[in-house]
Amino acid sequence: MAGLFITFEGGEGAGKTTQINRLAERLTQDGHKVVTTREPGGTPESEKIRDFLVQREGGNWTPCAEVLLLFAARTMHVEKLIRPALEAGKVVISDRFTDSTRAYQGYGHGFDLKTIESLEALVLGGLVPDLTFILDIDAKTGLERSGRRLAAEALSLKQKEDRFENLDITFHERLRAGFLEIAKNAPERCLVIDAMQSVEDIAQQVAEAVRARLRQA
Amino acid sequence: MAGLFITFEGGEGAGKTTQINRLAERLTQDGHKVVTTREPGGTPESEKIRDFLVQREGGNWTPCAEVLLLFAARTMHVEKLIRPALEAGKVVISDRFTDSTRAYQGYGHGFDLKTIESLEALVLGGLVPDLTFILDIDAKTGLERSGRRLAAEALSLKQKEDRFENLDITFHERLRAGFLEIAKNAPERCLVIDAMQSVEDIAQQVAEAVRARLRQA
Repeated sequence: MAGLFITFEGGEGAGKTTQINRLAERLTQDGHKVVTTREPGGTPESEKIRDFLVQREGGNWTPCAEVLLLFAARTMHVEKLIRPALEAGKVVISDRFTDSTRAYQGYGHGFDLKTIESLEALVLGGLVPDLTFILDIDAKTGLERSGRRLAAEALSLKQKEDRFENLDITFHERLRAGFLEIAKNAPERCLVIDAMQSVEDIAQQVAEAVRARLRQA
Repeated sequence: MAGLFITFEGGEGAGKTTQINRLAERLTQDGHKVVTTREPGGTPESEKIRDFLVQREGGNWTPCAEVLLLFAARTMHVEKLIRPALEAGKVVISDRFTDSTRAYQGYGHGFDLKTIESLEALVLGGLVPDLTFILDIDAKTGLERSGRRLAAEALSLKQKEDRFENLDITFHERLRAGFLEIAKNAPERCLVIDAMQSVEDIAQQVAEAVRARLRQA
């Protein structure tokens, strides 16, 4: 495909959103057409699934049902947004993708990783990111940053109880170890970045890696 | 497992609901504990997925996303309702199950049947109905009956436009042929019943088959 598919992964408070916005700005300045998106979500249908999973009142889903819902949202996201944008030569930057399902439902909640791999093979038509940035931060610092961000945004208590944010520290430690394992298993596309560095330093490393990749293409 | 898992399958207007109610009454009179349920649905979470799929405003899902949503609903249905009831020795009667996904998304919409089989193997833990009644009716008669029923129930126009009901005649012909093919491939559990017979005659045949199966158990 003509475009480039970039994903950002990592636990809470790692700074994905900030870095995605910086990268999108730089690439746009460089003359690229850029689409930023997120998971779960990215299409109206997929955002409805997000509501199920992220909101407390969305239901008490089993890890297996969560994985299936995430892949339902993901197939829509791929078919309706990501693949058409890549075919049109655009750079697609997604806040989370399949690696987050591996990390959260697999490493975090103990759902069978092989089933996740099988689902990926069954329903995504082989679509894998060209480049994945894993923003690595220790679980405690990430949760503190994430907590500060939520407080600063003055969200309601219910929103703060968001299922994806409000899990215990050992869960977040499994998550971090999971992301590092994912990077180890896919070094051809994954780059682990120390998220304790300054926003500027991280943005610089991300931009350099993307530019190198674009020169290769 | 101690209980018995019975499913009713067939196109629109085949009379599933009537027969499920008759069978539940008879089995209750015989002293069995009976649970009746339906798909998509059967748990609060699964009913939310039903709303996505059945209502027109639920979204424009691809067949692949539909299949994943149906299996997400189905794993919840199996884990939270069907399996616990069977383990408690109950007779579970479901209005539709995996065969409807084969028929509607597979034979009807052309979604790859092998992917449906793979998903079934991946996420249902081997749960297959003990007995499946396929109520067979020609597509045109079924649609007419279904249309009459909808009119009689005085539903709103929007509800009448239900995606599962309002598809064209050739789709319903593929659906019927699909159900007959499913029965041919699984003769050990499937019984095709001519749905043009009287309600009494069908109820008698269903009850006899279930009693024979209960004697075997």
